[in-house]
Amino acid sequence: MSDMLITLTTDFGTGSPYVAAIKGVILTLNPEVRLVDLSHEIAPQDIREAAFFLASTVPYFPLDTLHVVVVDPGVGSDRSILYVEVAGHRLLVPDNGCWTPLSEGSHHPPRVIRLTESRYWRSTVSDTFHGRDIFAPVAANLSLDLDPRELGPVAANWNRLDWPRPARRPDGVSGEVVFVDRFGNLITNIPGAALDELAGRSGSVQIGTTEIRRCVRTYAEAPPDLLVALVSSGGWLEVAINKGNASSQLHAGVGTPVCVTWQA
Amino acid sequence: MSDMLITLTTDFGTGSPYVAAIKGVILTLNPEVRLVDLSHEIAPQDIREAAFFLASTVPYFPLDTLHVVVVDPGVGSDRSILYVEVAGHRLLVPDNGCWTPLSEGSHHPPRVIRLTESRYWRSTVSDTFHGRDIFAPVAANLSLDLDPRELGPVAANWNRLDWPRPARRPDGVSGEVVFVDRFGNLITNIPGAALDELAGRSGSVQIGTTEIRRCVRTYAEAPPDLLVALVSSGGWLEVAINKGNASSQLHAGVGTPVCVTWQA
Amino acid sequence: MSDMLITLTTDFGTGSPYVAAIKGVILTLNPEVRLVDLSHEIAPQDIREAAFFLASTVPYFPLDTLHVVVVDPGVGSDRSILYVEVAGHRLLVPDNGCWTPLSEGSHHPPRVIRLTESRYWRSTVSDTFHGRDIFAPVAANLSLDLDPRELGPVAANWNRLDWPRPARRPDGVSGEVVFVDRFGNLITNIPGAALDELAGRSGSVQIGTTEIRRCVRTYAEAPPDLLVALVSSGGWLEVAINKGNASSQLHAGVGTPVCVTWQA
Repeated sequence: MSDMLITLTTDFGTGSPYVAAIKGVILTLNPEVRLVDLSHEIAPQDIREAAFFLASTVPYFPLDTLHVVVVDPGVGSDRSILYVEVAGHRLLVPDNGCWTPLSEGSHHPPRVIRLTESRYWRSTVSDTFHGRDIFAPVAANLSLDLDPRELGPVAANWNRLDWPRPARRPDGVSGEVVFVDRFGNLITNIPGAALDELAGRSGSVQIGTTEIRRCVRTYAEAPPDLLVALVSSGGWLEVAINKGNASSQLHAGVGTPVCVTWQA
Repeated sequence: MSDMLITLTTDFGTGSPYVAAIKGVILTLNPEVRLVDLSHEIAPQDIREAAFFLASTVPYFPLDTLHVVVVDPGVGSDRSILYVEVAGHRLLVPDNGCWTPLSEGSHHPPRVIRLTESRYWRSTVSDTFHGRDIFAPVAANLSLDLDPRELGPVAANWNRLDWPRPARRPDGVSGEVVFVDRFGNLITNIPGAALDELAGRSGSVQIGTTEIRRCVRTYAEAPPDLLVALVSSGGWLEVAINKGNASSQLHAGVGTPVCVTWQA
Repeated sequence: MSDMLITLTTDFGTGSPYVAAIKGVILTLNPEVRLVDLSHEIAPQDIREAAFFLASTVPYFPLDTLHVVVVDPGVGSDRSILYVEVAGHRLLVPDNGCWTPLSEGSHHPPRVIRLTESRYWRSTVSDTFHGRDIFAPVAANLSLDLDPRELGPVAANWNRLDWPRPARRPDGVSGEVVFVDRFGNLITNIPGAALDELAGRSGSVQIGTTEIRRCVRTYAEAPPDLLVALVSSGGWLEVAINKGNASSQLHAGVGTPVCVTWQA
């Protein structure tokens, strides 16, 4: 296991000295470990974006990967740090709910351990950088086969994220944009299956006050500049403009309401 | 070969969940593989920038490296995905011509295979994310020594990029800017040898409507703030300002015309 | 040593073809080497930022790591390239002082070698890209156990960075902001111990013309939107706004004066 995969997800910014310091601490304790950058571009302190990101990416990784997540506005407060096993995935996370959506697919209860055993931390712990001083050395120790039970007591409860749920009605579903990608595509929290239900019935998809007139299967199916709805690669309803940027053209972003309506 | 190098070049943005998903799929199929991020900052859907990038970087890599390129505005359409061997380099690319400039140095015909054998793909293929569902698993399978002939039939033709050519005249060369680097240096499609031809003759280099008064060998040779022409590290005519940003000062970018004129 | 760690720190921009070319050259000479991206987001040609970055990150890495630093406004001039061993760390750097702050903690003189032996370089050296043509092949050769003495003569002197020093007075310390992180936190060159001296005395911390009214231990200790001073994770006085961006709210950045004043 000494060449275990450890992924890093933070809001520090690509090229931040904080990311480099975390890498150095891990590699000093275990030079064999294989680091994979997932993202350092989570919006600063944005737990929801981190939660969407983890749910969208962690399931694709090998099961023995350790995912280190440092999006941690509560650093230095009495918030805990957790070791979590959920649906076969292993994470080190602040106890801020960033793994709530990831856990929702799982039918088994997660295994959660609260990090209290400071002998696995750096000897001096900064009040503002637990990523370097707690997450990194604990991750390295886990990659060296430390039993997670050594890290602290089993936790029976933890914080859950108040993740926005779509509202289901007889004549449709309402939800909101939860992620905007680099192309300006707007990913919502509405299951893509809503578009199947719409197919063949009269009805519509609306984002903010704008009606979307075409549902497609692929971007390429739409003429350039047409606003369309489709199923995202993650299985969600997505609003996009082929060869355009839906986010900037609609002035839409995270939180913009979206609804699918059909003849009940 | 199980620890083969696989490089990734995309327009998804650094830190995109799409990049992370691709990494996860590859590592799940072959945990030994060694991933190298080349760029995820290709301008969205900009096949020309991808083409310049690949021609500028792939030749420096070891010959058995596999280069995975997902700059793919045609995703979900009937465009093909190709496995290409050219000048000893191996690539997985959408059939959009992004490897045209890379292939131009080669005196041997490329070997091109069209990906049709879906048994090497993920079992469900999203219409909007072939990077995760086709490119990634095929790359992992190749790193596990799959014979490329298993991927599909040999292709006899493919799309070529309409890459801008410089125009040669008795009294000079005309071309355009094809890449702007982070320093604002403007790289053109005019071979750097044009500056040698200019040397010792009366003549000039012009970008847009601005005349460049000095040709230098290095940035440092020029006084700060002077607009100069030099030979780029890739061998092209480059327009730069020592300790300044030529792109923003000249309002110049990709497509801006550049010409070298001398006494014929 | 063939699987040695080599880190890369540049100002080329994440996703730059220049970074990719450096990776390719290193991996061609030594495919076993393990590359770690530290940062490619150093501000263009900003030697001071590179110096702060290296001093903040290199000490966390294993001692046999080789750190390649290409922030090199003097490329192509007669500035030297140095191989440096300092405090157990190994670096390849342009001779521009970027390692001055890193060296200050060390009680032993550094070992410095000036790169002159071009047989370890690429056969053709571009005048504008020594990163690819000198740094990269030399780094790869070192990872293959080349004795550094082969690279050139021992250097007895080198350029030192004019790094801003805090000014100590009987009634306080004056300094300035030297780094702004992605959260807008302002890191100064004033040792964090100055806040201990202030504790329990009447006095104040001032940034520009703004007085900071609260000193805290952690971000979370402060109510949102309050401007506070605290000790950074690197041990420096830091000015921050909990859940806010101090840099943009104060219009403060690198060079903004900061002072701590107490009753002498």
